[in-house]
Amino acid sequence: MIRRLPRYYRQLSELQEAGVVRISSSALGRSMGLTASQIRQDLFCFGEFGQQGYGYKVDSLKEEISEILGIHRGHTLVVLGTGNLGRAIIQNFRFSSNGFRLLAAFDISPAVVGTRIAGVPVYHTDELEPFLAQHPVSVGMLTVPISAAQEMGDRLVQAGVRGIWNFTNYEITFDRDDVVVESVHFSDSLLALSYMITQREQPARQREEEETL
Amino acid sequence: MIRRLPRYYRQLSELQEAGVVRISSSALGRSMGLTASQIRQDLFCFGEFGQQGYGYKVDSLKEEISEILGIHRGHTLVVLGTGNLGRAIIQNFRFSSNGFRLLAAFDISPAVVGTRIAGVPVYHTDELEPFLAQHPVSVGMLTVPISAAQEMGDRLVQAGVRGIWNFTNYEITFDRDDVVVESVHFSDSLLALSYMITQREQPARQREEEETL
Repeated sequence: MIRRLPRYYRQLSELQEAGVVRISSSALGRSMGLTASQIRQDLFCFGEFGQQGYGYKVDSLKEEISEILGIHRGHTLVVLGTGNLGRAIIQNFRFSSNGFRLLAAFDISPAVVGTRIAGVPVYHTDELEPFLAQHPVSVGMLTVPISAAQEMGDRLVQAGVRGIWNFTNYEITFDRDDVVVESVHFSDSLLALSYMITQREQPARQREEEETL
Repeated sequence: MIRRLPRYYRQLSELQEAGVVRISSSALGRSMGLTASQIRQDLFCFGEFGQQGYGYKVDSLKEEISEILGIHRGHTLVVLGTGNLGRAIIQNFRFSSNGFRLLAAFDISPAVVGTRIAGVPVYHTDELEPFLAQHPVSVGMLTVPISAAQEMGDRLVQAGVRGIWNFTNYEITFDRDDVVVESVHFSDSLLALSYMITQREQPARQREEEETL
């Protein structure tokens, strides 16, 4: 369910931009590949947004979901590592649409320290702790090499950061339960795709396994 | 379950590299944040790998999972779009460890067409169809701008590609059920993290919602 909320938010944003004022649960479901009853069940948990037969008001539903997702809470973020991936995300990702302010990036390369990427200042990693002492930061995004992942994560947490957005493909862990890690594992995604296309290529085996599962 | 298989594969690869020969379901579970009984349940579906009290043989379990994931099937891939994100993935992602051969990249920018990125040739997008007619391609990776997402996806499918690895943050769809789309939505991931840290910040509200859910 938590996994579906961001999708609802994204879908409702698109509907709002397209000028849609009201939408029925079945139309919303179709656009998201869910059944109307899944939609009603999901949204029921979060209060009464719809009225039977009248559909959902797009703007108020979006507003309520953005509240639950914490989009208006002024979350802040720093990026650790400005290699290709870090740079790509800094330049292209719409942090503000997702309720985040990107405050700064950190790197060790003299070629980037002191520059700006899409307006975001890049500091030396040595300046991380002094910076975090001055600026409350909700999330640290890790786009460092895998060998530096845990150490940089530990430094963030030590300095008070409680959310880690992990792109390092390393299964980073912390010995405390007030830290939240969200990992984007590209390989897990590609392997899931590999599994699905392999199943399509083997229709007989697919049927057999579906019967077993 | 399909979502967990790639994690098992990743974990088993790490164990193998660390020289671990056998592992109990409880130790495997601990390292993955799952219970021993979840592990046994997951792996039971795919045949009898373990023996009660003896644990799992790391190499044969990994081998069996890699078979199911289609890692040895010689899947091939092309990349559409060599902006920062496309370039970052071409340069850093270990396609071969995941059973994929990256054959070529396509772009429209004269600055990159005709060059190589990490050894991978970059062709003009006009050459996509002739290339696909010559080379069987399992997966097309989309790192094009959102405005080009559906069109490039359609061209891939038209030319026989059946797997789409979508990074465009656009909900790409196809009117046929033999095409598989796997999307990496950065914003969904960040919003899930936003939700989790928001809940931590509001312990009272969290408890209340947990009771409702």
